[in-house]
Amino acid sequence: MPQKVRIALDAMGGDVGASVVIPGAAVSLKRHPDSEFLLYGDSKLIDAELAKHPALKAASRVIHTDVAISNDEKPSHALRRGRKTSSMWLAIDAVKRGEADVVVSAGNTGALMAMARLHLRTLPGIDRPAIAALWPTVRGDTVVLDLGASIGGDAHHLVSLAEMGSAMASVLFNIERPTVGLLNIGREEMKGHEEIREAAEQLRAMNLPQLNYVGFVESDDIGRGAVDVVVTEGYSGNIALKAAEGTARQMSEFLRNALTQNWLRRLGYLLARGAFQALRAKMDPNKSNGGMLLGLKGLVVKSHGGISAEGFAYAVDVGYEMVRCDLLTKITQMINSDGSALAQTAQEAVS
Amino acid sequence: MPQKVRIALDAMGGDVGASVVIPGAAVSLKRHPDSEFLLYGDSKLIDAELAKHPALKAASRVIHTDVAISNDEKPSHALRRGRKTSSMWLAIDAVKRGEADVVVSAGNTGALMAMARLHLRTLPGIDRPAIAALWPTVRGDTVVLDLGASIGGDAHHLVSLAEMGSAMASVLFNIERPTVGLLNIGREEMKGHEEIREAAEQLRAMNLPQLNYVGFVESDDIGRGAVDVVVTEGYSGNIALKAAEGTARQMSEFLRNALTQNWLRRLGYLLARGAFQALRAKMDPNKSNGGMLLGLKGLVVKSHGGISAEGFAYAVDVGYEMVRCDLLTKITQMINSDGSALAQTAQEAVS
Repeated sequence: MPQKVRIALDAMGGDVGASVVIPGAAVSLKRHPDSEFLLYGDSKLIDAELAKHPALKAASRVIHTDVAISNDEKPSHALRRGRKTSSMWLAIDAVKRGEADVVVSAGNTGALMAMARLHLRTLPGIDRPAIAALWPTVRGDTVVLDLGASIGGDAHHLVSLAEMGSAMASVLFNIERPTVGLLNIGREEMKGHEEIREAAEQLRAMNLPQLNYVGFVESDDIGRGAVDVVVTEGYSGNIALKAAEGTARQMSEFLRNALTQNWLRRLGYLLARGAFQALRAKMDPNKSNGGMLLGLKGLVVKSHGGISAEGFAYAVDVGYEMVRCDLLTKITQMINSDGSALAQTAQEAVS
Repeated sequence: MPQKVRIALDAMGGDVGASVVIPGAAVSLKRHPDSEFLLYGDSKLIDAELAKHPALKAASRVIHTDVAISNDEKPSHALRRGRKTSSMWLAIDAVKRGEADVVVSAGNTGALMAMARLHLRTLPGIDRPAIAALWPTVRGDTVVLDLGASIGGDAHHLVSLAEMGSAMASVLFNIERPTVGLLNIGREEMKGHEEIREAAEQLRAMNLPQLNYVGFVESDDIGRGAVDVVVTEGYSGNIALKAAEGTARQMSEFLRNALTQNWLRRLGYLLARGAFQALRAKMDPNKSNGGMLLGLKGLVVKSHGGISAEGFAYAVDVGYEMVRCDLLTKITQMINSDGSALAQTAQEAVS
């Protein structure tokens, strides 16, 4: 029997903290009974929640701390105030010290990024971490990154994102050479920012065995499932993600209103409700919850802040799966095997 | 009786040219019988189509030209080859010479931008034109710009976009002081690119009587109808637009598949089909067709290239409406009245 997956949770993270984090962990534990948890935060609040979830209580250890990072704190402020003391830092520290395999937090994204980067450090050759997530498409899921970890980035950064995203798609979808597209505002070679065109050239020239670069994709190609991995810097990634989420919500609202307008439609809705349940399940933003912070010497999962316990459970699931499929080793291998190529292209860019 | 609205059409533009442009114009003419048309392109192709639409034929004049700009031509190449000769240029020229009130083209966006800019020139204080369109939201439409006319832009550019977008919202929605938001990846003041934060400061400081700046909005706020006008530079605008379009298509496809899976659902669909027709009408990308090129000394409408005649008709409608509500005068007034403020903030940015 394999070792248990050890998950460190920032129990104070998110809009409501322990009252979502603890029941969420309980849901995930049911799906993955071979998990165990380290719970960081106010032990009073945590224990009160744990009392309702005896199975989780049996699989958990609570580590008390008074300090919690708030959602509106600037990362620099959070670091000064919460370093070595906050629930977020201590949960990250558990991964750093090898006591946990992954940390999951629904807390302040900027603070989580800053603490994880400072404490876990980035992998060799990686300047800045990225947030990657699964985007539901008409042909299964697509890995999309960066969804907002850092703004902008040169060609080298985009190439690193392509490599890390491919590693993730490879272990998750079990494919040897995932297809990769660079997000742009047109498919023609002359389109877009210079760094994107340069990254395209580099990816084409490198012709890596673990990654099949297919060209530019536009943001309406994502939902079409045109590629396994979509690569973009964090600003446009975040813009695309939220535009998609907003549109999904908007359509659901239109449909709900239209379906309740008269008894005939309401009857039709009742008869076809399986279809709507299927649609809801497909487009459920809860299920896409759980962004991976890639590029760090440790596994970190970021959950949405304003999420239900059910939604937080999905983020914990993501953490569990990434440990089980050994994502970190795969990414490290990918980056190492490519070390020379990366260094070379960086060299060329300088000269 | 007011004067007729004179519309110049690039009959060769788009993926299929005259066979969509001419029937599209015929549909629009039925809705606005007080339109008349100048049709530029291959007279053989145009006349063949006009033969099927006698009402349009009676309201049109055909100007023959052999030269048509293709979709994959670079703007610089299109300019060299098609200046003064192509259907696109001649249609723009009709506006320049005052023979038409507006030009509509489904052709190569880059070429249309370049030709319109060169021939019509930008308004005083405006560096580069922008594409604005109506985005359907849960609370009516929102003006969103720039949707891809130019990449990047400083604070001054963003402030100009805010002013032009407000002028458009003001005449279209008949409101005195439209609410305006700057697209960003968070609502907090510290978020995003420097130029966006600077534009926010300027808009707040200017406190214009014709525009109510409310702060940053995220791309999931657009579909919520959070503001009347959403302002962003062209790259992220295009990313957001296409992500939304892709998601709408994707959800429709999921729903269609789910609704045809068994007879119960199919029956439910039949009973509730009014609801689906309403949804389709709401989210119909055809209806959102017709981007306004703002910032030029003339009215130019860009239609999608791969569109049906019905869709092209909506772009012609947009042109008609912008003439009738005198958008150009409104924008010019807005920019003139604000000339001093704009010059001042530009000055501050330099010093």
